[in-house]
Amino acid sequence: MRNVHTRRLGVHRLIMLVTMATGASAAVAGPIADAYRSQADRIIDAALTSDDAYTKLQHLCDDIGHRICGSEALDRAIEWASAELRKDGMSNVHTEPVEVIRWVRGNESCEMVAPRRQPLVMLALGKSVGTPPDGITAPVVVVADEDELEKLGDGAKGKIVLFNNPMPPYDSEKGSGYGHTVRFRTNGARLAAEKGAVACLVRSVTAHSLRTPHTGTMNYKDAPVQIPAAAVTVEDAETIDRMTKRGIEVVLNIKMDAKNHGPAMSANVVGELRGSTHPEQIVVIGGHIDSWDVGQGAHDDGGGCIMALASVKLLKDLGLQPKRTIRVVLWTGEEIGLFGGKQYAKDHADELANHVAAMESDSGAFAPKGYGVDCKDESRMKAAADQLRDIMTLMEKIGATDVSEGHGAPDVSPLQPEGVIVMGHEVEGSKYFDYHHTPADTMDKVNPLELKQNVAMMATMAYILADMPQRLGEKD
Amino acid sequence: MRNVHTRRLGVHRLIMLVTMATGASAAVAGPIADAYRSQADRIIDAALTSDDAYTKLQHLCDDIGHRICGSEALDRAIEWASAELRKDGMSNVHTEPVEVIRWVRGNESCEMVAPRRQPLVMLALGKSVGTPPDGITAPVVVVADEDELEKLGDGAKGKIVLFNNPMPPYDSEKGSGYGHTVRFRTNGARLAAEKGAVACLVRSVTAHSLRTPHTGTMNYKDAPVQIPAAAVTVEDAETIDRMTKRGIEVVLNIKMDAKNHGPAMSANVVGELRGSTHPEQIVVIGGHIDSWDVGQGAHDDGGGCIMALASVKLLKDLGLQPKRTIRVVLWTGEEIGLFGGKQYAKDHADELANHVAAMESDSGAFAPKGYGVDCKDESRMKAAADQLRDIMTLMEKIGATDVSEGHGAPDVSPLQPEGVIVMGHEVEGSKYFDYHHTPADTMDKVNPLELKQNVAMMATMAYILADMPQRLGEKD
Repeated sequence: MRNVHTRRLGVHRLIMLVTMATGASAAVAGPIADAYRSQADRIIDAALTSDDAYTKLQHLCDDIGHRICGSEALDRAIEWASAELRKDGMSNVHTEPVEVIRWVRGNESCEMVAPRRQPLVMLALGKSVGTPPDGITAPVVVVADEDELEKLGDGAKGKIVLFNNPMPPYDSEKGSGYGHTVRFRTNGARLAAEKGAVACLVRSVTAHSLRTPHTGTMNYKDAPVQIPAAAVTVEDAETIDRMTKRGIEVVLNIKMDAKNHGPAMSANVVGELRGSTHPEQIVVIGGHIDSWDVGQGAHDDGGGCIMALASVKLLKDLGLQPKRTIRVVLWTGEEIGLFGGKQYAKDHADELANHVAAMESDSGAFAPKGYGVDCKDESRMKAAADQLRDIMTLMEKIGATDVSEGHGAPDVSPLQPEGVIVMGHEVEGSKYFDYHHTPADTMDKVNPLELKQNVAMMATMAYILADMPQRLGEKD
Repeated sequence: MRNVHTRRLGVHRLIMLVTMATGASAAVAGPIADAYRSQADRIIDAALTSDDAYTKLQHLCDDIGHRICGSEALDRAIEWASAELRKDGMSNVHTEPVEVIRWVRGNESCEMVAPRRQPLVMLALGKSVGTPPDGITAPVVVVADEDELEKLGDGAKGKIVLFNNPMPPYDSEKGSGYGHTVRFRTNGARLAAEKGAVACLVRSVTAHSLRTPHTGTMNYKDAPVQIPAAAVTVEDAETIDRMTKRGIEVVLNIKMDAKNHGPAMSANVVGELRGSTHPEQIVVIGGHIDSWDVGQGAHDDGGGCIMALASVKLLKDLGLQPKRTIRVVLWTGEEIGLFGGKQYAKDHADELANHVAAMESDSGAFAPKGYGVDCKDESRMKAAADQLRDIMTLMEKIGATDVSEGHGAPDVSPLQPEGVIVMGHEVEGSKYFDYHHTPADTMDKVNPLELKQNVAMMATMAYILADMPQRLGEKD
């Protein structure tokens, strides 16, 4: 028996190492978890047996589809979400006007015209200007980064600059490498224009590609001239790189109808599950209702919006009215400039002191892992994190126990400098950037069980934060 | 020490189980391996330090690109491969005319026009007819398989039939599931036409998609009418399926310029490393030089062609002239109807008795695993398999030791009924069908080290089969 036991221990240790590598913590249940165990179990059980979230996401993805800022589809999504909140019995349902910008992609193409003709797969970047009707035809110079661009000297003048900087594969400890690599998408056009380039291409920001283009926003800032900017696939970037490294001149023709149409009106969607005792105290939950103009915006960020809608309906249906108010906010215009998040912070400046916490889910609807938490007052953040760790022990049954300090989520980030405790609803991240901003961010990538688990986590967390005696981040 | 040892054993057993699951055999070196160990080591070492195969594949993929039957690009590829064989010092280099068919895709599009407008991603299937210029506009009916189509009765009449049959994920024991799922691509148009459908769509035959369409050939056979047939992505098939399951009528417009232009001439490429003692006895190695008209045909089947070209050059450069002749054959028109393989069997009917073995690599250029072997005379196949297992012990250092009985490869399959021992060069198969017949079958998917390992395996095997005293499949 000893030997058998020891052998099992060997395997067990392997499993423990794997568990530790995924960052699962071993927090011990504290007073909050003890007080809310039965309600948490009810919420989680109900979430895991409800199809509400999946049905809602199906409508958003299949019947409305993608919904870029300024589009009719986004208007329909906003109208639909408001109607759902009303139908589900929420209070104070309304939209809050947000001035956004309207950028329209139009038709676009990219073709290698020398040394041979070959269409390439391309997506213009959000906010890019277009090309003349016949396009821009020029040779390509390939650089890996800013240093290589600098070393070109005058070599980029009159050329198309291609930033071919690979995003590393997902690493469970280091994360995605997105933050490091995305800078070429954001700044590439400005950097290339400073060197006299006529257009800028970036390798799509992803570690996995099946000839998959990834769009996303870019910024000209103080660029000397606004040149067209677009993403090509990993495959096409690598092909051009291999050919130019062999001394072959690759000439491309890029055509883009892309146009900035200036300001347009959109709206944040708001609805509340009003608190019984302290309705003026608010726990915000939500996602962003806009998406890119490709795919269905299923993970980015249909899932986040639907988790919030389904969470308040679930609590309402269970008759679980918390002491404080849970406010659903579905922000608009996140992708193209965080317009909804910034506007919310302005419009609600006078009640931010009453914002107990503001959380967003904008990392996809994969298996839930836990929460990130941030606050400009570090001692309040630490205290909040400890309370969250206590609460997360209730989520062990859905495999979500992580609490990490120092980060929130995009649309709640404008509330952080105002002293609000902001939170990011975090999920297993290995696949997110495979689909992010692509035609492949579609409903089939959302696992129905994982979506339910996300609702379980968000509804449980929102309910406890809105109901527990002490305010998050403060001592009892 | 005992405990430590036992714990290690636990982990070791896990590793053994994993190794066994991948099908690695534990053959023991026999007389052939013993006789050829030093030559095999020389060949393998040389292959692992040569960039020749990668350089050649780069030219085929980047400078020539995809090369569908009947295209100018295929003509260029044939001319280039012949020139390489001559440059590398091969004998009897020539092309052998093959009548193929010329099918041209042209422009194509698929759009959901109701209940909302949304472009879908589509690739016409090879040999499909086109649509009228304005396309075909009709509602979709979705079926999983032949039974569901049958149950529709008249329900497919005037409709577009979508076969939404998922290919299972790759399984290291069961393989890819491609063979079972591809029947809808092959037969779907005929089956749908028999039920009065106006067009046929199939879910792309793949287990992984990033909105990735997979083309491939189809056959009308005795269909009552030839209706257009195309593949849509997994994502679009699933979207239509979800919508129709909710009772929503989905109407599509399909436009396809696709046209069969009738017979055209192409050619197999042939070149030899002539044998010193029995030049009339032949070991065939090769791949198919044509590809689909998307991507670069890197794994399918640029890799196979290049392995053969690089193998004979390597042996020539090492001064290793075998007793028998190694004949490189690069078959044409495989994708659209195995034209080159069939023609070779006809043209060489009078020397097939002298074909010691005929092997093709058409499973990609991933990490090599070993060989499949087939022969209509089972006792010769068994004898050959035993000899191959002996030889494969020499390849342990590149991780390739598998020998499996009862299967060869497409272009050598017409030789099997003639009594020739046919062989398939086999590689790790988990990713092949992710890229197969797609715009993503590109050079970046080929690992340079794995390509070298494939050359090592093919060159070693070809040399030994062409040089060993006994003929493959015969007793000493």
